[in-house]
Amino acid sequence: MKIFVAGSTGRVATELVNRLIKQGHDVIGGARHPENNVKSPQVTPVKLDLHASVAELSALIGKVDLIYFTAGSRGKDLLQTDAFGAVKLMQAAEKNGIDRFIMLSSLNSLEPEKWNQPGLTDYNIAKFFADNYLIHQTKLNYTILQPVNLTEEAGTGKVTFGDSAVTTNPIPDVAAVLAELPQYPNTARKVIIMRAGDQPIATALQALA
Amino acid sequence: MKIFVAGSTGRVATELVNRLIKQGHDVIGGARHPENNVKSPQVTPVKLDLHASVAELSALIGKVDLIYFTAGSRGKDLLQTDAFGAVKLMQAAEKNGIDRFIMLSSLNSLEPEKWNQPGLTDYNIAKFFADNYLIHQTKLNYTILQPVNLTEEAGTGKVTFGDSAVTTNPIPDVAAVLAELPQYPNTARKVIIMRAGDQPIATALQALA
Repeated sequence: MKIFVAGSTGRVATELVNRLIKQGHDVIGGARHPENNVKSPQVTPVKLDLHASVAELSALIGKVDLIYFTAGSRGKDLLQTDAFGAVKLMQAAEKNGIDRFIMLSSLNSLEPEKWNQPGLTDYNIAKFFADNYLIHQTKLNYTILQPVNLTEEAGTGKVTFGDSAVTTNPIPDVAAVLAELPQYPNTARKVIIMRAGDQPIATALQALA
Repeated sequence: MKIFVAGSTGRVATELVNRLIKQGHDVIGGARHPENNVKSPQVTPVKLDLHASVAELSALIGKVDLIYFTAGSRGKDLLQTDAFGAVKLMQAAEKNGIDRFIMLSSLNSLEPEKWNQPGLTDYNIAKFFADNYLIHQTKLNYTILQPVNLTEEAGTGKVTFGDSAVTTNPIPDVAAVLAELPQYPNTARKVIIMRAGDQPIATALQALA
């Protein structure tokens, strides 16, 4: 497949891109600093500015089979990047006839009553609006993945989807779930909460109702 | 009627409240500084904090016939006040069985391709998300009023709805349209662009398709 990754130089996305390459895909790596992309003949680095218009984003993305949105401003530009930048990328996807859109989101983005870290409220709101737009105002075949706190630990290849007391997610496991998602049609139009757990990723993905 | 005005001490809202009183209505004036509300036996000032939960907002609003949203943070807290504060008030309205919700919005909030003042982008995005939520994710009977640039000029009692070259709106005319809207069932579920013009307000409202 040909895959566009928005925010391709982030911590999760770098692991994701490495996995997509190993799976044999070609990746267009969109980032503010495209030179930080994974170096590979399978990766085409492009400069992605989420302040661009939908028409510009559409031209940049071109014809791909799948888009990942893993971009974020780390709290510095939430309205224009995390929220509205995501919306414009969705609109560009629809304009280009791209059906599949995988969103790296945040825990409980759609359930404000569960937000309990006041320092994250602005971020949560940005993700709330982006995710709601994806679900309610596009026809995209979405999957919204909501990990708990990302950690730099080594991956275990095992996860739990849904609720549990675990509050961490090793980054490689989040990247692995993102990379495997497209192979499971049952992940379409789902919001998936993930955290470290004891189910092999393939088993957990297969088991999603 | 009993009417809740969110952001009741703003420039437009103060004129609006004065008009609602003259029409014989009772107003609950919700504001960060409730002491700045219009002084009248018909006005009940309440402290409105849009960082509150939906449950708290629901308790504050109680049973009213109509809600106006005219609150804004003047760019200081767009995510939590202008965007998500509005959403929580919509949710509180639905929770309380209040059907009618009138939103003071901004020009072309739903048409980003028409935004041409870069300094207003964050504000426009906040209104984009609030208005989209109102239209697509509530069952409220909304009217979204989108004036052009507000001015301190005297009102003329005349307006144009829709496009024209005029880029200003005297505040008293915006307040007058807001105050008259509930009397026109044909304004339900509409987005109305307004600007200074030559049609008497009642005529213009009647003429809306």
